[in-house]
Amino acid sequence: MVQKGQFITFEGPEGAGKTTVIQEIYHRLKEDGRNVLLTREPGGIRIAEKIRTIILDNDHQEMDARTEALLYAAARRQHLAEKVIPALHEGYTVLCDRFVDSSLAYQGYARGLGIDEVWAINAFAIDGVMPDLTVFFDIDPEVGLARIAKNDQREENRLDNESLHFHRNVYEGYQELIRRYPDRIQLTDASLPKELVTENVWKIIGAQFI
Amino acid sequence: MVQKGQFITFEGPEGAGKTTVIQEIYHRLKEDGRNVLLTREPGGIRIAEKIRTIILDNDHQEMDARTEALLYAAARRQHLAEKVIPALHEGYTVLCDRFVDSSLAYQGYARGLGIDEVWAINAFAIDGVMPDLTVFFDIDPEVGLARIAKNDQREENRLDNESLHFHRNVYEGYQELIRRYPDRIQLTDASLPKELVTENVWKIIGAQFI
Repeated sequence: MVQKGQFITFEGPEGAGKTTVIQEIYHRLKEDGRNVLLTREPGGIRIAEKIRTIILDNDHQEMDARTEALLYAAARRQHLAEKVIPALHEGYTVLCDRFVDSSLAYQGYARGLGIDEVWAINAFAIDGVMPDLTVFFDIDPEVGLARIAKNDQREENRLDNESLHFHRNVYEGYQELIRRYPDRIQLTDASLPKELVTENVWKIIGAQFI
Repeated sequence: MVQKGQFITFEGPEGAGKTTVIQEIYHRLKEDGRNVLLTREPGGIRIAEKIRTIILDNDHQEMDARTEALLYAAARRQHLAEKVIPALHEGYTVLCDRFVDSSLAYQGYARGLGIDEVWAINAFAIDGVMPDLTVFFDIDPEVGLARIAKNDQREENRLDNESLHFHRNVYEGYQELIRRYPDRIQLTDASLPKELVTENVWKIIGAQFI
């Protein structure tokens, strides 16, 4: 397939402050006169939303780790097919909050399914549509979780019940991905104040695309 | 994993008459004093049932073929993890109406996703739990569909809208699988009267396990 627009994804531990920074980046790119799509899975795609409802249901404690990984890949595929790929074809810059690296770090590494195994099902799901750039929000997982704990507005779901041990493993999984994809994944220090993080992410994107 | 029981799957085009024959085989095995589990995906497993509801929703015409294949693999995994694997561990003979070959024939071959590609996600889903024996109900897809058309009790779902052309491709897909797995997949002529088909399937199973 011919992919005309730039595809940028954002990754990091829980509470790394991605959402606010990405919104600011989105507005800056718009002000710059670009066509920009800001999205995250399941992104309002009804089939993907229904899949996510199954994944996040607090009642589904019996869910097998492989089932979970396959459902994430399925939701990813539908979101990609209906929303991301059409936007890229129209030349949009697509900003996506979490993508394939999240599955590799969470299911592949932290749940112990194996990065290569989870990559196999995601390679099927994305069918060659890889991000041109991935920005990793680097923060100690303990600091990230402490930030979340302070935020009462966030609804609890099945994944919030995971232990700090799990989130430390997720972080280690990301470190492994950074070693594997040093060109695609760029780091930014997410422990800095939001304004500084925004500036640094803006510089990373600018260095590559603007 | 240690798999003590026998795992037998049944495959074939729509309307091949599998269901009736499998039930008869199930009763014969029980009368033989065996512990037998007769199942089919999603098999009453609530997470798998919810996934199948998404797949079969007549309204989901926008569903991408890769999403569908991933959802089938997810439902398969959960059914396997909760129902099939525990039964095999307890030494049960497990009879499963459709399994991985259906995905390879329907999604891999007929939808054109590729048998190897669909195998990759199913290899992840089944994690080494392959059938010891697969009985293929061999019938011309046109004959099978004509049988279904006569049966008013069967509820229509999204997949019944597929064309005869699609079902011919499914049949061709199965032929390819029979070539690939000549030891595992055994054929039975499903155009014969039900009683004869049952006798022949009973002989196939007996030759291997009884």
